[in-house]
Amino acid sequence: MHLVTGGAGFIGSHLVDSLVGIGEKVRILDNFSSGKAEFLSHHQGSDSVEIIRADLLDREAVESTMEGVTTVHHMAANPDIRLGTEVTDTDLNQGTVATYNVLEAMRISGVRRISFASSSVVYGEANLMPTPEDYGPLLPISLYGASKLASEALITAWAGTFGAQGYIHRFANIVGPRGTHGVIFDFIHKLKRDPTRLEVLGDGRQEKSYLSARDCVRSMMHLIENSHEEINLHNLGTGDTCSVSRIAEIVVEESGLQGVSIEFTGGERGWAGDVPKSYLDVSKLLSTGFVPEGGSEDAIRATAKALISEIGL
Amino acid sequence: MHLVTGGAGFIGSHLVDSLVGIGEKVRILDNFSSGKAEFLSHHQGSDSVEIIRADLLDREAVESTMEGVTTVHHMAANPDIRLGTEVTDTDLNQGTVATYNVLEAMRISGVRRISFASSSVVYGEANLMPTPEDYGPLLPISLYGASKLASEALITAWAGTFGAQGYIHRFANIVGPRGTHGVIFDFIHKLKRDPTRLEVLGDGRQEKSYLSARDCVRSMMHLIENSHEEINLHNLGTGDTCSVSRIAEIVVEESGLQGVSIEFTGGERGWAGDVPKSYLDVSKLLSTGFVPEGGSEDAIRATAKALISEIGL
Repeated sequence: MHLVTGGAGFIGSHLVDSLVGIGEKVRILDNFSSGKAEFLSHHQGSDSVEIIRADLLDREAVESTMEGVTTVHHMAANPDIRLGTEVTDTDLNQGTVATYNVLEAMRISGVRRISFASSSVVYGEANLMPTPEDYGPLLPISLYGASKLASEALITAWAGTFGAQGYIHRFANIVGPRGTHGVIFDFIHKLKRDPTRLEVLGDGRQEKSYLSARDCVRSMMHLIENSHEEINLHNLGTGDTCSVSRIAEIVVEESGLQGVSIEFTGGERGWAGDVPKSYLDVSKLLSTGFVPEGGSEDAIRATAKALISEIGL
Repeated sequence: MHLVTGGAGFIGSHLVDSLVGIGEKVRILDNFSSGKAEFLSHHQGSDSVEIIRADLLDREAVESTMEGVTTVHHMAANPDIRLGTEVTDTDLNQGTVATYNVLEAMRISGVRRISFASSSVVYGEANLMPTPEDYGPLLPISLYGASKLASEALITAWAGTFGAQGYIHRFANIVGPRGTHGVIFDFIHKLKRDPTRLEVLGDGRQEKSYLSARDCVRSMMHLIENSHEEINLHNLGTGDTCSVSRIAEIVVEESGLQGVSIEFTGGERGWAGDVPKSYLDVSKLLSTGFVPEGGSEDAIRATAKALISEIGL
């Protein structure tokens, strides 16, 4: 039995699909704050999927989901990095404290293996690109990044102290169908409100690694299958980058709208705590034999198509 | 005005002494859980020292201490690393959440500068010795280490998002008068109970960097004076190590006891989550012009003398 926290969310629901696809039983724990029932509607009536609506801050509820579980896929978190600039305890609670509650419930229930959705933002503004897993020092600049690094540290502490096994996946920007936030999602909503212009936060030169949700889930499952250390730490990405201005162009192209004026608010970053450039070294992932289906631009174009169809223009 | 959290504790009270010694005003925030009034008794009646008894988990109380403060020296934490093996939320609350409360109170009150007592345990079991500040990946193996890394990340996030300035000091093992825990303290208490034998946890070959509390405080104050980056990250230590079996010998020598049998429980580490070897690269600290007064063995011998006199044998 697999437990997927945040299993009704963007990446979590894709992971549930993949686990069910290979015949596994899945229990989902989600508070549906950003997750959506419709992301799981195709599993309705399935014997393979069990859905529990509960919050990770409810420690008893978390404990009660551990029976029979062999692997916890801890995907739940506040998905909106920018929120930390306004509400400062969201990432602390829904990130760090939630991960503590998951690990503590695992310890009490004797569940050993955790696969965790970390993020490239733990690197902060790295001065080495592409950035490998052993880069240091780690100086995250967002509250979201702080909660991801804190959660990684809790996992390694649980491994060192109580014998847990941890898979720590440092995600590139993950994009794809069912996206509920992020730059492509924002651009489409902006075009929906005003099809004549597209406002881009920053100067558009922000440049990051993107990975499709499908490749993200494929790589996580590949690593759990093929990597067997106590702590298995990998960057998940495609080994390239795409600029925000290029994303704007792709979204406009896919929208079919004509004469859209792309306007930049200026400045090197979108908001305080935004990392202007992120470029992950994924050679460790590739050395395990994983082959991504596409690069950053492929992932972005496919996502633009999918989200335009989901959101409607 | 300086605010010293944990100012009644081991390192905090030495810092208070030094700040008062150079004519600074100091406000102390301490819950006296491990701090002691007697560590501050020589400041009684002083105009320079104000003592507030409150817990860092009481956010309103923390906020009320910020008036007029220019620098927060955040020294408060659970001092007992081993406790995490038994009570798993101590470091989360008294470490991570407490640091969040301090930073949030600073943000609300417009206080910008924080000097933080981090630890060499954030490196976990490093495979590079001596270990420099840019070592990675950081995989702490104790819950205490996880809380220190989480607190570092909160500080860098507050710097990146809200413009805070952070001094992150990764301490070697700090030893000295007023020590309330640690290997020298434990050895003296064991000899007090049974002066014929001294039990050493592990095989005695655990080997770590030690620094006197006096040099620790001197180096923190030196860095605040001489380093002016947004994030100032330094290992604090003497650039050498001492083994646990050597510490046992020194404590027995200083005790004056004859015929003490030193007995080892065996195994490479003292307890689950104990790092067997820690050796800090302090070249970055030394490059700022700081000169330690002594090495690890000097610090240990002076501490053994002081604690034997404090505890009594």
